Amino acid sequence: MSPAASETPDVCVVGTLAFDDIETPSGVREGILGGSATYFSVAASHFAEVGVVGVVGNDFPDEFRGVLTSHGIGTDGVEVDPNGKTFHWKGKYEGDMDQALTLETDLNVLETFAPKLPEHYRGSPYVFLANTDPQIQMSVLDQLSDPRLVVMDTMNLWIDIARDNLLKVLKRVDGLMINDAEAKALSGEDNLIAAGRALVDHGPRFVVVKKGEHGSFLFSEDRLFALPSYPLDTVVDPTGAGDSFAGGVMGYLAGSNAQRVSDVCQAMLYGTVVASFTVSDFSLDCLAALDRPQLDERTDELKAFISI
Amino acid sequence: MSPAASETPDVCVVGTLAFDDIETPSGVREGILGGSATYFSVAASHFAEVGVVGVVGNDFPDEFRGVLTSHGIGTDGVEVDPNGKTFHWKGKYEGDMDQALTLETDLNVLETFAPKLPEHYRGSPYVFLANTDPQIQMSVLDQLSDPRLVVMDTMNLWIDIARDNLLKVLKRVDGLMINDAEAKALSGEDNLIAAGRALVDHGPRFVVVKKGEHGSFLFSEDRLFALPSYPLDTVVDPTGAGDSFAGGVMGYLAGSNAQRVSDVCQAMLYGTVVASFTVSDFSLDCLAALDRPQLDERTDELKAFISI
Repeated sequence: MSPAASETPDVCVVGTLAFDDIETPSGVREGILGGSATYFSVAASHFAEVGVVGVVGNDFPDEFRGVLTSHGIGTDGVEVDPNGKTFHWKGKYEGDMDQALTLETDLNVLETFAPKLPEHYRGSPYVFLANTDPQIQMSVLDQLSDPRLVVMDTMNLWIDIARDNLLKVLKRVDGLMINDAEAKALSGEDNLIAAGRALVDHGPRFVVVKKGEHGSFLFSEDRLFALPSYPLDTVVDPTGAGDSFAGGVMGYLAGSNAQRVSDVCQAMLYGTVVASFTVSDFSLDCLAALDRPQLDERTDELKAFISI
Repeated sequence: MSPAASETPDVCVVGTLAFDDIETPSGVREGILGGSATYFSVAASHFAEVGVVGVVGNDFPDEFRGVLTSHGIGTDGVEVDPNGKTFHWKGKYEGDMDQALTLETDLNVLETFAPKLPEHYRGSPYVFLANTDPQIQMSVLDQLSDPRLVVMDTMNLWIDIARDNLLKVLKRVDGLMINDAEAKALSGEDNLIAAGRALVDHGPRFVVVKKGEHGSFLFSEDRLFALPSYPLDTVVDPTGAGDSFAGGVMGYLAGSNAQRVSDVCQAMLYGTVVASFTVSDFSLDCLAALDRPQLDERTDELKAFISI
């Protein structure tokens, strides 16, 4: 069900909608639907009502918007820039596919984008700030009215060129979700456990470190939690795994109105499972076709995988 | 307590005793005690009575032998070659220390070593064949009388130059313990889950894949199990982690007379904890000083680490 035009979504995500060109050992795809907000929102939509804030160009097809709306995702916050083209990313994965090699990035409409939350999105209780300039993340925080849980992502670019602003945002959010290389870079620690602990000292109530095929860690003042990835013997395209994971986590939390650290650990199960579907095909092909029984079945398998 | 000269140990390990020169970001050490059988046996001695089969040269000091005997480890099977020098390995670890860089290997007395099990070792119920030429591993298998559980290790060298013999040994053991790169090389699979499954098809009842800081996986016909490493914020020297892990696993199994796959999963907890002490200092400095309460405390912490 789509939230009515005036209804506040359970989860609001501010991020990108994109055209991706992807090459992996499984094949090549061009002009497929991508973007952090896209993966996040479809993943979260399996658990809660979601609204997207982002921007597309005059070339964004109805078919792609339909992937969101068919999942009941609110698109009131998706601005259409009539004078520009949609953000475009071209990347490649090789070997064990643990890292994306960026071949091309065309920011296009993102270059001038200043997200403005629709009035009825400002009271969203759960908010995800996908990877973008920390100044933009800060401007979104300023538009929110008393959210229950705000989680942010970032990337090496901002750690390198906008570290101070990034740390200011970090002080104002509940959670940080980043990958292992970013955690090490932001903390300045070579050891991941030391890195995660150091990041908690920067302000957030919890830090979730995504380690790709090696699963994820949660760090908080008094909790350390490890979860492996769902065991897949074939990965087709890792694009969107991290954003889907975040979507599963935030969707589950919003759907159960939960925000304690122990709830986040539980939510990581769902994030992990949703991400495992994402990487099983290109774009959102597998993620978007999911139903709840498939999710529940893999969640049970994941629980068995970690039970002694 | 040391097994009396005529007593059959619970666990018999056939492997190396070595002089190591090690360089890690924490420092440099020369001529320290190393070797697969050394790490394995001290780790296992915390849970069961252990006998070592190996060879040293005329330069192996009483002090090093004393590290074993002071842990009640039987050394009747440690041959002294009066005409040679002890096996020597020089290695280096950099950055996140996920791989050892071998700088020098002097086989010395290992070049002509053909292990001969003392009569009273042949009935050992639990046997670990540490990494060595598969032909030697086979000759040990031929000396055993009805063991309850035999587990083997190997390395890339034998996968490259003695694959057929290796696969023959694999058919005769209960378990294989190798690292992730070796699992991929031996199976020919890029994906680790596919690799583990393929290796089970080669004969062993279970395969444990050691992933260093990323923990370990167990594969069997009907079970897949993941365990993270114990979360350490400082690693001093990773040398011996894998052999200590194996020692903890085999020691725990022998000490509780267990051999089911579910017991192996349980035993992996102890292997993981013992290995976490090993890497906290050079050589066996930390591992050898361990007591049972320390082990139990970290085991509880590891259980909490994986509990949702």
